[in-house]
Amino acid sequence: MKRQAVILAAGEGTRMKSSLPKVLHRVTGIPMINHVTNHAAQVGIEDLFVIVGHGAEAVSAALPENAKTVLQAEQKGTGHAVMCAMDQLDPEALVLVLSGDAPLISAKTLEKLIHTHEEGQYAATVLSAQVENPTGYGRVLRNEETCDLLGIIEEKDATPWQKSIKEINSGTYCFRGQDLLKILPKLSQDNAQQEYYLTDTLALLKNEDQPVGICCIENPEEIMAVNTRAQLAEVEAVFRKRINHRHMVNGVTMVHPENTYIDHDVTIGKDTVIEAGAVIECGTVIGEGCHIGQNSRISDSFIESHVNILHSTIISSRVGEKTSIGPYAYLRPGACVGKRVRIGNYVEIKNATIGDDSRAAHLAYIGDAKVGKDVNIGCGVVFVNYDGKEKYQTVVGNHSFVGSNANLIAPVTIGDHAFIAAGSTITEDVPGEALAIARSRQSNKEEWNKAK
Amino acid sequence: MKRQAVILAAGEGTRMKSSLPKVLHRVTGIPMINHVTNHAAQVGIEDLFVIVGHGAEAVSAALPENAKTVLQAEQKGTGHAVMCAMDQLDPEALVLVLSGDAPLISAKTLEKLIHTHEEGQYAATVLSAQVENPTGYGRVLRNEETCDLLGIIEEKDATPWQKSIKEINSGTYCFRGQDLLKILPKLSQDNAQQEYYLTDTLALLKNEDQPVGICCIENPEEIMAVNTRAQLAEVEAVFRKRINHRHMVNGVTMVHPENTYIDHDVTIGKDTVIEAGAVIECGTVIGEGCHIGQNSRISDSFIESHVNILHSTIISSRVGEKTSIGPYAYLRPGACVGKRVRIGNYVEIKNATIGDDSRAAHLAYIGDAKVGKDVNIGCGVVFVNYDGKEKYQTVVGNHSFVGSNANLIAPVTIGDHAFIAAGSTITEDVPGEALAIARSRQSNKEEWNKAK
Amino acid sequence: MKRQAVILAAGEGTRMKSSLPKVLHRVTGIPMINHVTNHAAQVGIEDLFVIVGHGAEAVSAALPENAKTVLQAEQKGTGHAVMCAMDQLDPEALVLVLSGDAPLISAKTLEKLIHTHEEGQYAATVLSAQVENPTGYGRVLRNEETCDLLGIIEEKDATPWQKSIKEINSGTYCFRGQDLLKILPKLSQDNAQQEYYLTDTLALLKNEDQPVGICCIENPEEIMAVNTRAQLAEVEAVFRKRINHRHMVNGVTMVHPENTYIDHDVTIGKDTVIEAGAVIECGTVIGEGCHIGQNSRISDSFIESHVNILHSTIISSRVGEKTSIGPYAYLRPGACVGKRVRIGNYVEIKNATIGDDSRAAHLAYIGDAKVGKDVNIGCGVVFVNYDGKEKYQTVVGNHSFVGSNANLIAPVTIGDHAFIAAGSTITEDVPGEALAIARSRQSNKEEWNKAK
Repeated sequence: MKRQAVILAAGEGTRMKSSLPKVLHRVTGIPMINHVTNHAAQVGIEDLFVIVGHGAEAVSAALPENAKTVLQAEQKGTGHAVMCAMDQLDPEALVLVLSGDAPLISAKTLEKLIHTHEEGQYAATVLSAQVENPTGYGRVLRNEETCDLLGIIEEKDATPWQKSIKEINSGTYCFRGQDLLKILPKLSQDNAQQEYYLTDTLALLKNEDQPVGICCIENPEEIMAVNTRAQLAEVEAVFRKRINHRHMVNGVTMVHPENTYIDHDVTIGKDTVIEAGAVIECGTVIGEGCHIGQNSRISDSFIESHVNILHSTIISSRVGEKTSIGPYAYLRPGACVGKRVRIGNYVEIKNATIGDDSRAAHLAYIGDAKVGKDVNIGCGVVFVNYDGKEKYQTVVGNHSFVGSNANLIAPVTIGDHAFIAAGSTITEDVPGEALAIARSRQSNKEEWNKAK
Repeated sequence: MKRQAVILAAGEGTRMKSSLPKVLHRVTGIPMINHVTNHAAQVGIEDLFVIVGHGAEAVSAALPENAKTVLQAEQKGTGHAVMCAMDQLDPEALVLVLSGDAPLISAKTLEKLIHTHEEGQYAATVLSAQVENPTGYGRVLRNEETCDLLGIIEEKDATPWQKSIKEINSGTYCFRGQDLLKILPKLSQDNAQQEYYLTDTLALLKNEDQPVGICCIENPEEIMAVNTRAQLAEVEAVFRKRINHRHMVNGVTMVHPENTYIDHDVTIGKDTVIEAGAVIECGTVIGEGCHIGQNSRISDSFIESHVNILHSTIISSRVGEKTSIGPYAYLRPGACVGKRVRIGNYVEIKNATIGDDSRAAHLAYIGDAKVGKDVNIGCGVVFVNYDGKEKYQTVVGNHSFVGSNANLIAPVTIGDHAFIAAGSTITEDVPGEALAIARSRQSNKEEWNKAK
Repeated sequence: MKRQAVILAAGEGTRMKSSLPKVLHRVTGIPMINHVTNHAAQVGIEDLFVIVGHGAEAVSAALPENAKTVLQAEQKGTGHAVMCAMDQLDPEALVLVLSGDAPLISAKTLEKLIHTHEEGQYAATVLSAQVENPTGYGRVLRNEETCDLLGIIEEKDATPWQKSIKEINSGTYCFRGQDLLKILPKLSQDNAQQEYYLTDTLALLKNEDQPVGICCIENPEEIMAVNTRAQLAEVEAVFRKRINHRHMVNGVTMVHPENTYIDHDVTIGKDTVIEAGAVIECGTVIGEGCHIGQNSRISDSFIESHVNILHSTIISSRVGEKTSIGPYAYLRPGACVGKRVRIGNYVEIKNATIGDDSRAAHLAYIGDAKVGKDVNIGCGVVFVNYDGKEKYQTVVGNHSFVGSNANLIAPVTIGDHAFIAAGSTITEDVPGEALAIARSRQSNKEEWNKAK
């Protein structure tokens, strides 16, 4: 059966105290709604409708290409939100309804919900969970004998007894399209909040003798919704635990998983050791047997195997096998570092290729450059790539040696096996094998200090 | 009714194994006793008496101006400590007795205690709490039928049965001045520790048919006393949770609140995102929509809105709107950075003003300077402010360009639109629009390397 | 009685997904098996036999000198492992059997096990624990009336009822040598895994009317075995808690102990404060009253008292009293820094002695050098110790001043009270009291920028 999904994402999220729409707050590096759309994609949703309202434009911009947005101009409840998409719903389809602010519900759980729904041939099935503290959630009312669903009561409409129920509505449902389309127009606003509650569809369907199911999940963590920044942090922590556990199962050592921050789309090879405080973001791929030192940040980068990174920042770069980086190094976008290279402390590389076996051990800036193999870049060397107007490139040949505190003023080319004397400012090309020097003779003024 | 408070702060705290008096150990950036005096101030205490003994001088120095210290030369118990202040207590006043080593008891809880005390027209009221593990605390004895307070028994004097009681004495009390003054002289040292126990006043008052109340608080976290470094860390964690929760409620995102360290007196605007490991101290004010990257430390500083700080250290400085800092930048006291400025990696600024739209992208030291607007400070530039004896100032005009690895030897003034060639050591003023250069001509010695 | 121990360390640990043998995975800085050998040494084991198999060579290399390795070529169970050492076991000795993957069992617990064993005059005694979740462990079967041990059942052989038992086998045993030697040959492979189970010795001894004891420990944390990376992280966390608690008891303040990483062999003086994220490794000794700032890493170093370290990396170095380091400083092996020295931001020191009261405040590299007392090393100074082939030494005399961005090209000697002008490249020795200068005269080309 064709599968459609409606994701509710129109709410403002006033308790977030934010100018950003709630569903755009980030969890493990992406807006929380993108977790929901990802999970929907994993269960084969063909038509994905996202109900937008507050910050509609910004939310739409964050959505994947295949999502269609439906505007809910006024927020009149969850039932109203789904009504807005009625024109697009297919009576022959299975329709999932998801909350844009509940990013933890996994594809596996959605499959379980769909399976329960299809097995039971239900008109509608709701995903529920048993929780310790149900405050804030709608409660599931069941027939005490049969345990069948009677309906769901919103907290604001619940009696004290109903509030003591610990089985809650996750806000995630599965409907038969035709039944959903038939029942939606029958919703009323006769309740505490004067809203159309989607939850009321369940009792209405029951009244029409349609079978309604419940799928109660084991791990209540999954249904956490984000209404406050504190909940955002809790959801982030659950994702962190999930992601890090997955990497550990794959053979990655983490000194302190609770204090290791890895985005959902990162790949790490076995026997890589990650120290506390590391942040690994944005699709980074790390090979086997690497060491990622404390507090390193690696983003959008490709790190080959057996690389040793100490307390450094690497953004949109590539690092070759057995290379060592840091501490306190900074690879900016476009750094492409070869194998067995040493990039040491206080070294910055930007938009530059560094050949295999080269070294820039300390206090250097290599920008807009092509550095060959087995090159030694001395301490304090600056690739002067900017004259205040334009940026230019520097080329340094293989096996060359650039002395300490030298300036290479781009555009300039240094040949293979060349040697730049320490303290020289190089403005003209240096042929291969040549020594280039540009500095003043030393003079000692004896007794000078005594005279003072 | 006039309110007085007596804070007990004379103990040595031997289990801290410290040469610092116990109440001076810091929690969220201030000595723990200052949390107690702050909370007392918030409930309108007019006369604040602090009983000092061990490290009396150091403790006195840490107290707010309005606190009066009372020396307890010998430590003969909590009752004895209050006796030391008897001359100063007003029979007409309400007298709070607080522990200097219990910094978590909030003003709200103190108000609740006072309210209970006044409502019940008690001679004395004790603050108690139900805890899981009462070890180390005095236990509250109640009449089994009426639940009225019978007295408090110190752990060292308690029977095994009494030790099983889980309601404990917080060490915080409220007295009617006249009753306290009347009962204190009746305390005896007839107990395990041969001390005057303040707790005994409660049973003595009962014996004289004075009404004694109990106020049992909900959150036992509040009454934690610090006797060991482990407890100090626990109290710090509770404060951290409280402070971070407050900021989250106000609209601040924290990636990992447990691992975010914010002093009690910090202000942060909404939609600011704080990454893990950040430390924000000492009255810092941060605007809206900022990004505070992992492991940044910001102390005693003013950060305007939409500032992006990556893994940097900022002390006693000011940073303008939309400026970006770091990673690995260091703003030392007196750095005053304008709007839309870029201060990059390995850049240190000390006692210097940087105008709007200027850039110091890497490896530079700017000290004792006034840098104009739209200035480019190249990589490796040093503001040479020290000749081994004195420090001098450098002035750099608007729109000027200071080339890489240049030295500006202060005192020196660079005019507007000036250009300093890379590698130059500048000892004399440079007029506006001028090019200043101070370097040697390059010579290439061809085949030099072959010859070797 | 003579004490022998057999440590089982032949397993592959397939769930670790590692090319490293399981027992070599590190916990608080050392392979986990070394924790086991350390604890064995602390209870006076005379003969230590380690059963090796997977990665036998690598495991053997990690062991202390007094350990004898015994190869278990095929892994046919724990009983088989001990059989491999039969030739070496002394019938007159007490024989401890330990698991190489259970590094948390303390010497104190081993003593308690031995004490129970000797007091009860048992043929064998097993260490057990009560746990919440016994999954994966062998269960202890007791006579329901006498509570005596009946035997141990492996999970794979257990009935559902047996699986519900929460008392588990720790895998640690104490045997009378003669009984162990007598019973081992009677083990069979008649079980789910077709292995020789060491646990079966207990029931076999019972059958022969030999007394068998149990020693149930209080803290089930101790018996955690490592089979996955997640368990490795849990064990690391328990060690971290233990180690940090020990330091706190000794008078060390930790802002956030859960986020402070200290190896097992580190010594720290009282009143030292350690901020969150610090890593202290490999036998480091730290004095009293130091401040170790957030995210510092200190390894294999000796830090005297009252040293202030901010966010820096210090490896195999020595730092004198009242010196201040960082932030973002890097002391590499062989840095030996005197008293009251200031090593500031972006300063790297390698294999160099720095005399008392000297300063290198920023952006400098001091390598292969001997720097005297009261020396000022300016910003951007480079000790040029490498000419592309060899490394040479630099000597800087007392009270000298090295100006900013100067290069000292080794080998070179600077006398006492000498002064090196900023921007100079020094290639020849500088006598005491002399001024050395090597730079070009400044020329200003006025209106140059206008002309462009």
